[in-house]
Amino acid sequence: MTVDEKLQIARQLARLKVDIIEAGFAASSPGDFQAVQRIAQEVHGPVICSLSRAVAGDVDAAWNAIKDADSPRIHVFLSSSEIHQMHQLRKDREDVMTMAVEMVARAKSYCDDVEFSPMDATRTNPDYLYRMLEEVIKSGAKTINIADTVGYAIPSDFQAMLRDIQLYVPGIEGVTLSVHCHNDLGLAVSNSLAAIEVGARQVEGCINGIGERAGNASLEEIIMALDTRKDLFGVELNIDTTQIYAASRLVSRITGMSVQANKAIVGENAFRHASGIHQDGVLKDRSTYEVMSPERVGLPPEVQLVLGKLSGRAGLQARLELLGYSLDREEVTGVYQRFLELADKKNEVTDRDLEILMDEENRTASEPITFSLDTVHFTGGDKDIPTATVRLIGPDGTFLTDASTGNGPVDAVCRAIDRVIGCSTTLADFQVQAVSEGLDSVGSVTMRIENAGRVFSGRSASTDIIVASAQAYLSAVNRMLAADEAESLPAVGSTPD
Amino acid sequence: MTVDEKLQIARQLARLKVDIIEAGFAASSPGDFQAVQRIAQEVHGPVICSLSRAVAGDVDAAWNAIKDADSPRIHVFLSSSEIHQMHQLRKDREDVMTMAVEMVARAKSYCDDVEFSPMDATRTNPDYLYRMLEEVIKSGAKTINIADTVGYAIPSDFQAMLRDIQLYVPGIEGVTLSVHCHNDLGLAVSNSLAAIEVGARQVEGCINGIGERAGNASLEEIIMALDTRKDLFGVELNIDTTQIYAASRLVSRITGMSVQANKAIVGENAFRHASGIHQDGVLKDRSTYEVMSPERVGLPPEVQLVLGKLSGRAGLQARLELLGYSLDREEVTGVYQRFLELADKKNEVTDRDLEILMDEENRTASEPITFSLDTVHFTGGDKDIPTATVRLIGPDGTFLTDASTGNGPVDAVCRAIDRVIGCSTTLADFQVQAVSEGLDSVGSVTMRIENAGRVFSGRSASTDIIVASAQAYLSAVNRMLAADEAESLPAVGSTPD
Repeated sequence: MTVDEKLQIARQLARLKVDIIEAGFAASSPGDFQAVQRIAQEVHGPVICSLSRAVAGDVDAAWNAIKDADSPRIHVFLSSSEIHQMHQLRKDREDVMTMAVEMVARAKSYCDDVEFSPMDATRTNPDYLYRMLEEVIKSGAKTINIADTVGYAIPSDFQAMLRDIQLYVPGIEGVTLSVHCHNDLGLAVSNSLAAIEVGARQVEGCINGIGERAGNASLEEIIMALDTRKDLFGVELNIDTTQIYAASRLVSRITGMSVQANKAIVGENAFRHASGIHQDGVLKDRSTYEVMSPERVGLPPEVQLVLGKLSGRAGLQARLELLGYSLDREEVTGVYQRFLELADKKNEVTDRDLEILMDEENRTASEPITFSLDTVHFTGGDKDIPTATVRLIGPDGTFLTDASTGNGPVDAVCRAIDRVIGCSTTLADFQVQAVSEGLDSVGSVTMRIENAGRVFSGRSASTDIIVASAQAYLSAVNRMLAADEAESLPAVGSTPD
Repeated sequence: MTVDEKLQIARQLARLKVDIIEAGFAASSPGDFQAVQRIAQEVHGPVICSLSRAVAGDVDAAWNAIKDADSPRIHVFLSSSEIHQMHQLRKDREDVMTMAVEMVARAKSYCDDVEFSPMDATRTNPDYLYRMLEEVIKSGAKTINIADTVGYAIPSDFQAMLRDIQLYVPGIEGVTLSVHCHNDLGLAVSNSLAAIEVGARQVEGCINGIGERAGNASLEEIIMALDTRKDLFGVELNIDTTQIYAASRLVSRITGMSVQANKAIVGENAFRHASGIHQDGVLKDRSTYEVMSPERVGLPPEVQLVLGKLSGRAGLQARLELLGYSLDREEVTGVYQRFLELADKKNEVTDRDLEILMDEENRTASEPITFSLDTVHFTGGDKDIPTATVRLIGPDGTFLTDASTGNGPVDAVCRAIDRVIGCSTTLADFQVQAVSEGLDSVGSVTMRIENAGRVFSGRSASTDIIVASAQAYLSAVNRMLAADEAESLPAVGSTPD
């Protein structure tokens, strides 16, 4: 993700009214530092937090990145389990204890709001864990976050563990108890809810449940369980649930990680009824098969007004506002031009088409551009040799043209681009999805390419998926070229050991 | 899904060693009846069950479909909640009670193994529910399946409800307690596990968690939670966990419903470590960040042997056996031919390519074919008018050729096919995914088309995604044409009211 993309997501999280945004890991790279810093400076409402290992350089970098925030927080984490300490940290448990205490104190010297996480807490010896938590609370930690780093916990057992922590850790009653659950056994959401039942008042998660391996707890599922079953949980949320759907779509588009159709709350089918018996019930009364309304999670209202070639600027602007975009006069003029180009190829322009259009506008405005696409042409077929011609505009404005064959039109187009630029990449992932229904639909293409162990993604959308593939590939290549350049810059802040 | 596809999935479920396969809903359509019947006749090992509403025609059709099974079961369901009875059934609660009792007795007259589900049980008045369960147990139900039809339950509350059922329903101790959980709040798996903790000994679910709306409980997550945390649950499973991955891939390919990358157990990233800290840990010791091994769920061994143009028949056969396919001499010869065609376009043929190849073999063998694709040719580009030519072979063997423009090459190809056949469809979904890494990768295309309220899907794979799109579209259209024909056949069994 670029810094601008991270900002876009942070702004949406602020609209969703989350309490805290963990904006990144400031010491991990100059790009991450910059992203945390800009979110701290530009996003208002939530507490802005940076992650930090329990080393001085990390804590210092975290503070430098977040100090301009309205409400800054430093989140120090350190492994508490014997497995991690022996095999990964390769440090003595008492040395680890000292690191935790000293680094929480160091964070506290900068910032009153300090969170501490014992990593792999669910596989940690209880007595050692209690002692570590007692010590870091004495050093000033105000939030204690129990991390089920490997997704090993089971709700009933996790509740027992948290109750013991509440019983045996002196000082725990004066801090916020938090949990951070992973989904390896599919239980991240229910472990988080089980924790809330026994008194946790902070849960960490991600939109769409993305994250390391099988991911983190899905925020949208936790929110809607608490909202739908208020009768059982009895906790108040500050969240604007109607921003959930927009947040899910934004994260999915930016990360290129699609959401499974039957994902709870935000999946394409979450509110669709396929079986005849269920359809019959819903037609008679929605509550027969729905425990929450689609409107509650911000699903856009069904299209009443279909936009097309003859729609005016005002009609477009009205529809965009209904979808949550606010644009000034000048911006509307730019979008309207692109809208007309699309309406020329497609009879009906749907809400999902408009979302993609707006996404493209936002993306291209913030993207590094070294080479841009002037023309692409291709031919192919089952008895042809797929062939493509591309003309790019180079950094100095000159036209660069070349052609290539390939084993399909996408391959041919990308190889022609490779020839012009003189690069070579490995395709890590390629996906196309129809944006809306109908054969004349827009196809949204995501490409992820690998180069020297790093992954760069590019996205584009067009009614022609080969043209969109060329644009997506070029966008990924431009990011790769920009990253190569950025790496020659000096690192910001101290470098962790 | 075609009957053959359902059979393919049922066979894989038998290899996974599930206890019961609910093969379908025999009374719902002639196609469903036939699928249940063939699974009952041809799949051995698990109990084979048909779903049935609480009406005489359904029960009779269920029995007719499953009577040849080694161990047949009839599963009768009926709504117990006031919301459903009032708004959907529009029947008096005592009449509903009578239906339940009479239809369980009718099922019992055919078959000793009868399951009863109170639909929407979690929103049902407890006293009424207890009475209904007591009565159906007296009528012969041997399994009582508590259905959280709308995904409303929360684990702690669900446990309390089940404990009350165990306490207040006379006879419950003599039957198997089962649960059927939906995932609307993301809790289907944890509700199922919570039920096992208090004594449920049957849980219903689906591979990949697919199902109505946000889906049913993910079987693979339940299985691996029970397997990984044997220390807590202490229940024995008969499951062969190493068949999980193959089951997931098969269901995903056949239904065209892709699995989210960060899905627990079977997602592409479930065993991938992205963060530097995690990678460092796993390299030092896998247990630092993994609670189960990828081998345990049947992830194929990393490719050691790369197949290519020069690989022989024996090398191909050996690799296919490692991936779980057993082929006779003749079958290998057919597959080898297709393998050489692919190796000609692609330097390295990966395991995932082979899976797709085998899938295509199985699919084309069982598919209805009215029209087949002889040739496709296309041209396009951002400054061209996308144009396609297709030549099909019709039912009587004649060549039929036509051309069309479109707003992209996929659109042009499909419209040319429409012109030849004289049909017109709506595209409901279109997806392309790279099968393996590398720009020369095979693209797997799924198309779903809608016609008169029904959805037909087609799949194909090729290094050329436009050629694959043409094949996938034609395959969906052939299914549509076959369904139109089948509809003129008389219905099998009685028709439910």
